[in-house]
This record gives sequence, structure tokens and C-alpha cells, in this order.
Amino acid sequence: MMRTGLPTRCWMLAALFFTAILSFSPAPVMAQVPPIPQATTDPLPSWNEGVAKRAILDFVRATTDPSATGFVPQPDRVATFDQDGTLWVEHPVYTQVLYAFSRLHLLAEGKPELKQVEPFKTVLSGDRDAIAKLSLHDLEKVLAVTLTGMTVDAFQAEVAHWLETARDARWKRRYTELTYQPMQEVLAFLRTSGFRTYIATGGGQDFVRVYAENVYGISPEQVVGTAGATSYGYDAAGKPILTKEPKLLLNDNLAGKPEGIHFMIGRRPHAAFGNSTGDRQMLEYTKAGDGPRLAMLLLHDDAAREYAYGPAQGLPNTEVGTFTPQLYDEARTQRWTVISMKVDWKRVFAFELTP
Amino acid sequence: MMRTGLPTRCWMLAALFFTAILSFSPAPVMAQVPPIPQATTDPLPSWNEGVAKRAILDFVRATTDPSATGFVPQPDRVATFDQDGTLWVEHPVYTQVLYAFSRLHLLAEGKPELKQVEPFKTVLSGDRDAIAKLSLHDLEKVLAVTLTGMTVDAFQAEVAHWLETARDARWKRRYTELTYQPMQEVLAFLRTSGFRTYIATGGGQDFVRVYAENVYGISPEQVVGTAGATSYGYDAAGKPILTKEPKLLLNDNLAGKPEGIHFMIGRRPHAAFGNSTGDRQMLEYTKAGDGPRLAMLLLHDDAAREYAYGPAQGLPNTEVGTFTPQLYDEARTQRWTVISMKVDWKRVFAFELTP
Repeated sequence: MMRTGLPTRCWMLAALFFTAILSFSPAPVMAQVPPIPQATTDPLPSWNEGVAKRAILDFVRATTDPSATGFVPQPDRVATFDQDGTLWVEHPVYTQVLYAFSRLHLLAEGKPELKQVEPFKTVLSGDRDAIAKLSLHDLEKVLAVTLTGMTVDAFQAEVAHWLETARDARWKRRYTELTYQPMQEVLAFLRTSGFRTYIATGGGQDFVRVYAENVYGISPEQVVGTAGATSYGYDAAGKPILTKEPKLLLNDNLAGKPEGIHFMIGRRPHAAFGNSTGDRQMLEYTKAGDGPRLAMLLLHDDAAREYAYGPAQGLPNTEVGTFTPQLYDEARTQRWTVISMKVDWKRVFAFELTP
Repeated sequence: MMRTGLPTRCWMLAALFFTAILSFSPAPVMAQVPPIPQATTDPLPSWNEGVAKRAILDFVRATTDPSATGFVPQPDRVATFDQDGTLWVEHPVYTQVLYAFSRLHLLAEGKPELKQVEPFKTVLSGDRDAIAKLSLHDLEKVLAVTLTGMTVDAFQAEVAHWLETARDARWKRRYTELTYQPMQEVLAFLRTSGFRTYIATGGGQDFVRVYAENVYGISPEQVVGTAGATSYGYDAAGKPILTKEPKLLLNDNLAGKPEGIHFMIGRRPHAAFGNSTGDRQMLEYTKAGDGPRLAMLLLHDDAAREYAYGPAQGLPNTEVGTFTPQLYDEARTQRWTVISMKVDWKRVFAFELTP
């Protein structure tokens, strides 16, 4: 497994861990009063007080207090997080698609015939309007050509290199820096509370695995994502290799999310976090379990600090992160908790702390 | 997740854990000598001294000693174990096949027309010779009918119930009691040494998950196995359910083992344990990694305490657990370590301790 080498992020994550651990030191023992561990500092400092923050704190208390009726034994404590738009920025284009486009340019240097064939010709033209009009089927062709046909080791090395060198257009930072600080706090808080935190992404499983450990502290086996087949074989020297094949094994989106969660985890989550219609079934499935269950939906309503899209702004939905009015309605009827980025978050990114 | 409720086995596992933890208490601090943690008791008490036991102890020392060149950071410590024939008895019939046959009898009570259709007619006849002649394709039909078409929750409950009530023909014990005590010690030893222990089985992922946590301390997400698709839907009351479908997602056998390991774990194991040709690629793939790697192959050569089959005995191979002479040769040339059940194990089953 290649490492993406993001020491800053690593230290931040370590600091988060220690903050969270410290915040759960037992309170001083009072005479005649049994010692009850209490949070002496806030485990969610980037969250404003409100319904969303309260829902997280209440859920953790209800599931981890051994005397509570909703107590969940530690082996059963599983939380799943959508990635694009829930843990980091997905707008205006998924990071993985940007990677695929960049990779296509590299590929075309060695295979100039790609420049004559659609949809590659359009992507290579750099014409943003034409690219925006490509169909999902066209994008799949680009993904198949750029993300398969190499060994898993070569793929990991290439993605790691790209993540180190590429910068996003708006913040001029690495994509791996565009994670939401409040969600990092939720990940750390759940883990110090005995939960195992999983990513359940419609994005590529192998792509997300390259950075998930450094960026989120989530190991490769805890990334459930859309996955292609690999094929086992031998290189010229007879060494065993695994090659990425253009054959879909798991489409981890929509109904595929609970199906993928069952396949990879084998337990129903007690908490799930999403932001789009692709997460609907995961949230439903999570909430349908017995006892306390937390289902949260992130609303992107902060154009100043990030982006605003979806029903709260009356903006047209983009292809990515489709947050329909119907989804908003279901959140209300199913008692999912909607997180307003604008209202609930004190800060969006960690780098706001150190401008 | 249903529990199989095996308190005896649970206590044994807990005892194993504590034994292993105790065996790693630091040695008393000597004047002027830095305190080096040392095993004061044997972490593998059911193993005779010899090449196999030495290989395990050397591997753990080489990978966990921070000053050793082969040191493996804890996140990378992954060990995979085949299940049937490596962690428990597979001879003369896989437990899962026995379950499927038993389930077919139950199904036929409600659907008597199954009694008229092959291969179900043969299985239901109870004619052992005829059953033994069924093809793999026939067995797959039986598995498809008996292991799919119900919700994952119903399947788990049915398997758990069967495991509680069924008894094997030779030892008159639950199948879950037929695990190898020396391998339980290896699992516990690796875990106390910071390894995550996975099952990589050609058997059904959902089937093995029902008992793996109680029997081996291996949680559902650490079971990689042959897996069928599920489909997300809603029951009559509108509650989300996952239904098991007769569609293969992952054939976790032969080349499918390293492919399944990449899919589910995303890292190359540092140690792998198998006993048949179905494990060959997993052992090759493990051994091909850098640094110290442990690949072990269990030879069933103990007819008195368990069974003898495979090359050592010159016996004809059965359909299950095919240990060919070619595999034995590859073990030698690739420097895998062969475990002789007869020579290397002081005892085979835990119940030998308490007859």
C-alpha cells in the first residue's frame, strides 16, 4: 500500500485523536458520588450548538452508556460515511474524474490515436462546455481506459503522485486538504467512542483507499466503494501481480450502498452520513435497525465558504451530489437530521484555522 | 448479526486471549539492562518444537521488533487464513454442504415437487453413493436453492439455529467445536502481536460470518469468502430488507483468493495459511511481497486424531481439500512451510484437554 505522504494532515489527525481522548478523561472523583466519565472539553469544537450537534452527542451517549436501553456492544458499533460531498468537496467535479482526465492526457502522449476517438477527443480538447455535455456512459468509457489495465500497485503509485502534485482551482490547495473539519471531528469522536468508521462511496474503492488512511485515519479495508474486478497473473519475471480489469464488481451507489455494506462489513450500521440521493438507501437501511440509529444528511447551503446547491437554495442540481426536494422531504418524514453547512459549522476547512 | 451462542467456545477463546496477553508481560527490569518484553510462557502450547513452530515465532519476531530490518508497521499487519481444512475439519464433507442438504429437506416439506427434480431428488433420497457422484454443477444448484431467496437476517438466524442443533457423525459434537486448537493459538498470538486476522475462504462468506466471531474472534468484516449478490428492497410493511440472490459476486477460491483479498482488504497479507490447491495463489501472492512473509500449508497426515489425505499418505485425493503432489513440490520450491498435523501438533482439538 502506497502512502500519499501528507505529514501536515497526519499531524492534524493525530492531534484530533489526542484532543478527543483527552476530552474523555474521567472527571475528578467526588465523595460518595460514583465516578462518571465526562467530556471536559468539546469533542466537536467546529460545530455550532444546535439540533445537528445535539443529535450526534445524544446518539453517542445513548449507544455507549452501558446502563442505557440503547447500549450497543462495541463489536456492533459501525458508522458509514459517504465521501464526495460528505467528507470533502465534490463540487463542481468529482476529484476522481479530474484524475481520470489528467491521466487521459498522459495516456494520449503514448497513444495519439485516442485524440481522434470520442469521447476521449472531447476530454482532450479541454473544451469545458463540451466536456460538461458528456453523458455518464461517456465518462464511464474514460474511467475504464484510465483506471484499468495496470497493476494495483502501479495504480496506487500513480494516484498518490497525482494527489501530491495536483491543486484545486478555487483554493489552490491539494484535494486532500479539502476535507470538512467538522466531519473529521465526528470521525475522531466516533472512533474514541468505540465505533469503527467506514467510508461507503460511489467513487472508486481503490482510488479512495490511496488517501483515506492519511486523510481520515480510515484503513483500506474500511473503504467500501465502487469496485472493478482484478485478475491474478504473473509478470515477465514470474512474480504474482493483480491487474485492474474494466469489469464492474460492485456499484456502490443508491441500492448498491446497503448491498456493498452488507458485502464488505456484514453488519447494519448504527450511524450513516450522506448528502445526496445516492445515499438515500444507506440512510434508510441504517435508520430501519433497532434501537438508537443516527442518519444525517449534509446540505450544501454555504456559497461563501464552500458551495450552495440543492433544495435550500432553489438552485438547479448539478449532475453530482443530487440533493432533490424529495430527498429533503424524506429526511423529514424518516427523521434523519439535516446538517446545514452554513448554520451548523463554525468552520468548514482545517486551513481556516491557520490562514 | 445473530450470535451462535457457544459459551464454552467463547470462554476458551477468552482464556486463549488472556493466556497470550499474559505471556507477553514485560520481564522484570534488570539493573543497567533496558527492559525488553519477553515471552515468559509459550504462546503456542499445542505445538511441538520443530520447523513449523519456529517459522511462526521467527516471523512474528522479525515483523514486530522495531529494530529489525523486516519490521512491519502495525497498520500493515494482515494475516489471512483459509477456513475449511485449515482452521477446522473439512473431511469428508464441507459443513456448508451438510447445511445445504439439511436445509433442502426442510424446503421439500413445503415444496414436495422438489422430490421429483434432479439433483434435489438424489440429495433427498439420502443415497450416499448417488450423492457422492453429483457434479459440482449439481451441488451449485442445491446451494442456490437453499442459500438464497431469503433475507440476510433470516439466513443468519437459520444457520445459527442449525449450528446449535447439528452434530458431526464421528465426534458427536457441534461442527463449531471441530476447530484446530493449534490454529486458534496462532490466531490469538498474531492478534496480540498487532496483526489483524482474516478468514479467506472458498466457502460462503455469509455462512462463515455467522460463527466466525464466536468461534475464532474474527468479526464479519474480516471474513472474505465466496459471496452472492444481495438486492435491496422493502418488505410488506415498507421496512428496508436485503435479500440473498442466486448471483455470484466473488468466487473466493484459487486466483479468486488474492483477488478477493485485494477487494475486501486492499493490502497484501504478510502471512497466509492454507491446506489445498484452492490456497495456492493466496500463498504465492503473500510470499511475493517484500520483507519477511510467512506462507504455511497444513498437511492432513493424522488418520488417528483427524484424517489423512493428500500426498504424504499416498491416498487418493477427495473432492475437498485437494492437496496434490504438485502443491507439495511448490511448497518446497517457494519455501512455504508445511505443517504436519501428526508431527507438529501436540493436540488437534480443544476438547482433548477436557475429555
